[in-house]
Amino acid sequence: MERQDKGLAFMLQYENVAWFDGREVRILDRRVYPGRVEFVTCKTHQEVARAITDMVTQSAGPYTAAAMGMALAAHECRDRSAGAQLEWLEEASQCISHARPTTVSRMKIITEGCLAAARRAIEAGGDAAQAVMDHTIEANNLRYSRVRSTAKYLVDMFPDNGTVMTQCFGETIVGMMLKECRERGKAIRLFCPETRPYFQGARLTATVCSDMGFDVTVITDNMPAAVMRNEKVDVFTSAADAICLDGYVVNKVGTFQIAIVAKYMGVPYFVTGAPDPGHPTVDTVTIEMRDPEFVLQAMGTRTAAQGVKGYYPSFDITPPHLVSGVVTDSGIYAPYDLKRYFARGEGEFSPSGLNL
Amino acid sequence: MERQDKGLAFMLQYENVAWFDGREVRILDRRVYPGRVEFVTCKTHQEVARAITDMVTQSAGPYTAAAMGMALAAHECRDRSAGAQLEWLEEASQCISHARPTTVSRMKIITEGCLAAARRAIEAGGDAAQAVMDHTIEANNLRYSRVRSTAKYLVDMFPDNGTVMTQCFGETIVGMMLKECRERGKAIRLFCPETRPYFQGARLTATVCSDMGFDVTVITDNMPAAVMRNEKVDVFTSAADAICLDGYVVNKVGTFQIAIVAKYMGVPYFVTGAPDPGHPTVDTVTIEMRDPEFVLQAMGTRTAAQGVKGYYPSFDITPPHLVSGVVTDSGIYAPYDLKRYFARGEGEFSPSGLNL
Repeated sequence: MERQDKGLAFMLQYENVAWFDGREVRILDRRVYPGRVEFVTCKTHQEVARAITDMVTQSAGPYTAAAMGMALAAHECRDRSAGAQLEWLEEASQCISHARPTTVSRMKIITEGCLAAARRAIEAGGDAAQAVMDHTIEANNLRYSRVRSTAKYLVDMFPDNGTVMTQCFGETIVGMMLKECRERGKAIRLFCPETRPYFQGARLTATVCSDMGFDVTVITDNMPAAVMRNEKVDVFTSAADAICLDGYVVNKVGTFQIAIVAKYMGVPYFVTGAPDPGHPTVDTVTIEMRDPEFVLQAMGTRTAAQGVKGYYPSFDITPPHLVSGVVTDSGIYAPYDLKRYFARGEGEFSPSGLNL
Repeated sequence: MERQDKGLAFMLQYENVAWFDGREVRILDRRVYPGRVEFVTCKTHQEVARAITDMVTQSAGPYTAAAMGMALAAHECRDRSAGAQLEWLEEASQCISHARPTTVSRMKIITEGCLAAARRAIEAGGDAAQAVMDHTIEANNLRYSRVRSTAKYLVDMFPDNGTVMTQCFGETIVGMMLKECRERGKAIRLFCPETRPYFQGARLTATVCSDMGFDVTVITDNMPAAVMRNEKVDVFTSAADAICLDGYVVNKVGTFQIAIVAKYMGVPYFVTGAPDPGHPTVDTVTIEMRDPEFVLQAMGTRTAAQGVKGYYPSFDITPPHLVSGVVTDSGIYAPYDLKRYFARGEGEFSPSGLNL
């Protein structure tokens, strides 16, 4: 494999993210990647939910992991009656979709889609686990084509030889965006804030960019304003964990302050992803508070003295007046005009709408 | 010693920061404090300059270390002729004051003050090293009393039961500010951004606050906006590495973006320290660019893959329209009105003006 394709391949081959092999689910441990390439093995669907809670996988990873967890659940109950199988799968859908409070709405779309596929197979006397796998592969393929469309619209916003600042790990959209740049011969350089406390920007986003042959610079999370002042940044972009229909964007903590700084500097902020009907307004969003002790260490070494407290909101909320455009597979929408996304006939949010 | 006095004592007892013992200079290694309490021993004044360049000591620490380096230089040349001693000390003053490019102006005030004290001793046939030590103790005592005055004005800006956000390591001003709060019975809680890549906020500022018995929470550098939104922050405050006479503030990278966020949120930003006549305007400031590889690790563990670049400006520059007030030993000045600081008759900037 060409080195420049390695980053994209990593993104696209979901086998590397999470995979059900007929007996158990293996999930790439992104908490240690790329320093170490290790997998967490889940023997039950509850263990899959636990791995998502524990952030073994992040960004779009949990959605594929959730589907694999549903396949595993179908496997677990395969010898029971049809009614008992459905009951088991409904419980699994609840368990897995609630692994992290901020993404319940999106996760339910995945797990309930799998549940429907399993139900059809059970009712037809087929293999429910296989049906979930087939459904997931199809949904992911549709998602990739949607992300590809999204990437085209996003790259239109980059000037030639432009400078792009990212935030956190953008999963498939990062690889697709860079592939699109390469195919158009559009050179860009990237600044990736490291994204404490997990360093997803330094470890994951920057690795994909570098593997795909782009000029990429990691900065600490206190540098975006200095970089925008000193280095002429053209565009700030991020994916999102939820895009509410009123234009509020929920994403990795830090997005809000970079958006404030970008507005101050006159740098546009484009968020990628489909609007999320599970959140008609921002009021339905629950921000997950994680273990505060985790911010008192870095790469496993304690930073602060005993007696000092930590504080760890996973996400923050960026209001629509700081968002220049919501980039979707069907074009770029003003953050105040997101209902129009659904007016094109699709009618409802689908798993493929997860343009991560 | 009472636990609550430990933090202040650490700040005030300069023996713990840098000390010339008659043969060599010992400097507390703040790069590893409080995880480890270790000292770097400098056998020549060039080694003192090197230690400052290497950030063994930070914030106000380099100023005391510089003075100790001058005492060591006086000791080094003690057996030479008066003319040769002065020549040696002039070279030492140059060497030490240029250890870091952004602080040359302030460092020269220290090293040239020591040089003048040494000159008087040499001309009177006295002990130049002892004269430098006496001068430094006197200057530091004056500095502490000035910092105490500054702290009183700063604490006037804190509401009772208020929440204060800091940036980086404030040295003596942090201890004095908390001592003042305690004496007035004014309860405050503090949020300290960790200040990557060296974690001075997590390691140093937060330790002082905790040792002095205050409620202190460390956050990562991507959280200030989220904390201001969620936790009601009343005041943002920092010290500065230079306050230019046109109101531009040079301080640890990250200050600029927190100031932008504070302005957006309606939170006032107060910077402590005396205006610096060495910088009549911001145009005389040189921002030190440090080894970019250093941002690709955290607490000694590599974060990014090979092939990824780093970027490391030590400081950033906050414009006066983001500064609510410059808090000095003689009161709080508007950032556009700093020349008035010198109108009170002092005439010139003195080492005691380093209200760090």
